[in-house]
Amino acid sequence: MIVVGGPAANGVDEELANLLNAKLIKVEHKIFPDGESYIRYPTTNLRDNIILVQSLYPPQDKHFVELLLMLKTAKEFGAKKIITVVPYLAYARQDKRFLEGEAISINVILEAIEHFGTDAFITVDIHNPDSLKKLSIPYVNTSAVKPLTEYVRDKFIHDISNTIVLSPDKGGIKRARKAAQILGVKYDYIEKVRDRVTGEVKALPKELSVEGKTVFIIDDIISTGGTIALATHSVLERGAKEVYAACTHALLVKNALERMYKAGVKEVVSTVSVPSPISKVRIGSIIVEALRELRVVK
Amino acid sequence: MIVVGGPAANGVDEELANLLNAKLIKVEHKIFPDGESYIRYPTTNLRDNIILVQSLYPPQDKHFVELLLMLKTAKEFGAKKIITVVPYLAYARQDKRFLEGEAISINVILEAIEHFGTDAFITVDIHNPDSLKKLSIPYVNTSAVKPLTEYVRDKFIHDISNTIVLSPDKGGIKRARKAAQILGVKYDYIEKVRDRVTGEVKALPKELSVEGKTVFIIDDIISTGGTIALATHSVLERGAKEVYAACTHALLVKNALERMYKAGVKEVVSTVSVPSPISKVRIGSIIVEALRELRVVK
Repeated sequence: MIVVGGPAANGVDEELANLLNAKLIKVEHKIFPDGESYIRYPTTNLRDNIILVQSLYPPQDKHFVELLLMLKTAKEFGAKKIITVVPYLAYARQDKRFLEGEAISINVILEAIEHFGTDAFITVDIHNPDSLKKLSIPYVNTSAVKPLTEYVRDKFIHDISNTIVLSPDKGGIKRARKAAQILGVKYDYIEKVRDRVTGEVKALPKELSVEGKTVFIIDDIISTGGTIALATHSVLERGAKEVYAACTHALLVKNALERMYKAGVKEVVSTVSVPSPISKVRIGSIIVEALRELRVVK
Repeated sequence: MIVVGGPAANGVDEELANLLNAKLIKVEHKIFPDGESYIRYPTTNLRDNIILVQSLYPPQDKHFVELLLMLKTAKEFGAKKIITVVPYLAYARQDKRFLEGEAISINVILEAIEHFGTDAFITVDIHNPDSLKKLSIPYVNTSAVKPLTEYVRDKFIHDISNTIVLSPDKGGIKRARKAAQILGVKYDYIEKVRDRVTGEVKALPKELSVEGKTVFIIDDIISTGGTIALATHSVLERGAKEVYAACTHALLVKNALERMYKAGVKEVVSTVSVPSPISKVRIGSIIVEALRELRVVK
């Protein structure tokens, strides 16, 4: 078993090699002056099972091309099975035709990853797990809720019994439930409601009261931070004691962090699937679990 | 027959639609705040033969992903044969392992273009035509020497009989020969020689004298402009009257243009395969010839 780390492995490769006690090969890479990527293996002997780690955070197209280059070249150098680990899978939100005529981008990304030599696939908290059904290889979509929740519990929350977990939308309710189970507390999802008099939009739990509570918001992706900022503002206005937020993938476009802190979030944290100032939570353990599920490791 | 223009068609789509008197469909596209590309066809009826135009100039990875999205979606919408036209093919210079362990990038790019639905392939002045042999579909690598040479002859050169054509290196000698045939003049290639006394590197024709001559340098790609600048400087120093340069693909990284003009190039021009301030020469006619060669049009 060899762990191969790509240009966008962001440390997950090293963590996996350590956890599995496997050989680590870091792929050499550079970008030519005209913008083309360059990939080179430091060895031409890859005659083993390979765990290839490459996330697809921005610049996602560049990281995607690098991934295809790594896959094809690994096969050329004798790789047996390749288990491709993509902690953050780009283009996962374009998973259907919202408007007639649209490309379903995620299908192209997954089809290419399979075509160029992937024998099994692992990703973390994909936007819509059904997207993976298009693959004809074994796959696991693993969840970062456990490491995120444990991190927030151990580092930030002082009064767990007084905490509630919220999902920013109905779609994420399973995630909130799982986090709540770990903490042994209640959970709910947030609904946006427009005040009939002022026209102001508020984002509050569907049923639970936030008064005096420590609120833990858990989400899959933080992009602009707008949803978390609005929810934070709303629950603090309603008397919440403090707000912590966690997400798997911290894309943080524009001034997302500033926006959330200004709204009153006390701490916000994410996994290392996308590099950012808040990417603190390691995901090696959940990927090892996924490898076990695929029977790649014992 | 429908011509489909991608985000990086740079006008070649419109020219082709005009020349072929075919319907033109411009694909809608945008870039999301996180950097992901979005592709949408304005119609879902593509039940016809398609000429799909998308160049792969920088950002080449983004344009490549857009191309794959367009290909797969066109097939989903019933496209019969897709003839993919990529005026500038990125990654063509990484066409072998220069060092052990390297990815052969061009193979991945071409394999993906074929895999996602291309039935025939056209490009212009690929770095190494042998790269195309990996394709299992019909292809044409067409040459822009004729339109480039005619443009330079008609717009710039006053005294054709006093002109010589130079290739910047031995590898491009065929290109220079073809241009010289069109002009009815002599040609040669440039050799770099280091002056044994001063150590200065000069780039001069292998055999021809440049004294009093109008020099026309023709190349496939101008990247940093260093080669053209050095050759221009050298031949002017040796008494050339004036220097014109032309290339198919004007990548022009950094201050390439300034560098060439400072060296004394009177005019430099390229095709529209890559957008730039010097991209003036149309390539519709040579692509139509390639389509004839593929028997796509009469």
